[in-house]
Amino acid sequence: MTMASYPVLVEVTLRPGIADPQGATIERALPALGFEGVEGVRVGKAIRFTVEAPDADTARSRVDDLCQKFLTNPVIEDALVSIGVEATIE
Amino acid sequence: MTMASYPVLVEVTLRPGIADPQGATIERALPALGFEGVEGVRVGKAIRFTVEAPDADTARSRVDDLCQKFLTNPVIEDALVSIGVEATIE
Repeated sequence: MTMASYPVLVEVTLRPGIADPQGATIERALPALGFEGVEGVRVGKAIRFTVEAPDADTARSRVDDLCQKFLTNPVIEDALVSIGVEATIE
Repeated sequence: MTMASYPVLVEVTLRPGIADPQGATIERALPALGFEGVEGVRVGKAIRFTVEAPDADTARSRVDDLCQKFLTNPVIEDALVSIGVEATIE
């Protein structure tokens, strides 16, 4: 079976309503540094990697599984998955 | 002057060649958990906020400035900025 390598970006965000002290600290600090008009700062994680899979659907289902089991805490975090163009592995 | 509110996503990544112990740890742990074929794991930050500006170009230049001065350490980190569709403020 020909496998392809798919580039993946997983953005892990805190779910709405979950306190984000890191984002709140950035937001509070900005006016003193001369940046006005910045609101709603939320800090999450951006995880990039490549995954080998026979096709894009399989790649997505493996990444969804990985997010649920390992990359996020589903109680307080959401994951937004983007899967890029394949690079075929000979 | 009419101001608009632009949603912004800043992805902060470690520059190529900078060691990423967090990504390396994830990558090392995955085979034991049954996930094979995942490579090149890099962990960065995903910062979302809204910025008020009169137009999209001004919004972008303000966000670039913010990244340089505050959100990244330019010696070891890169920033990838995405600016979304405006929401006009009356």
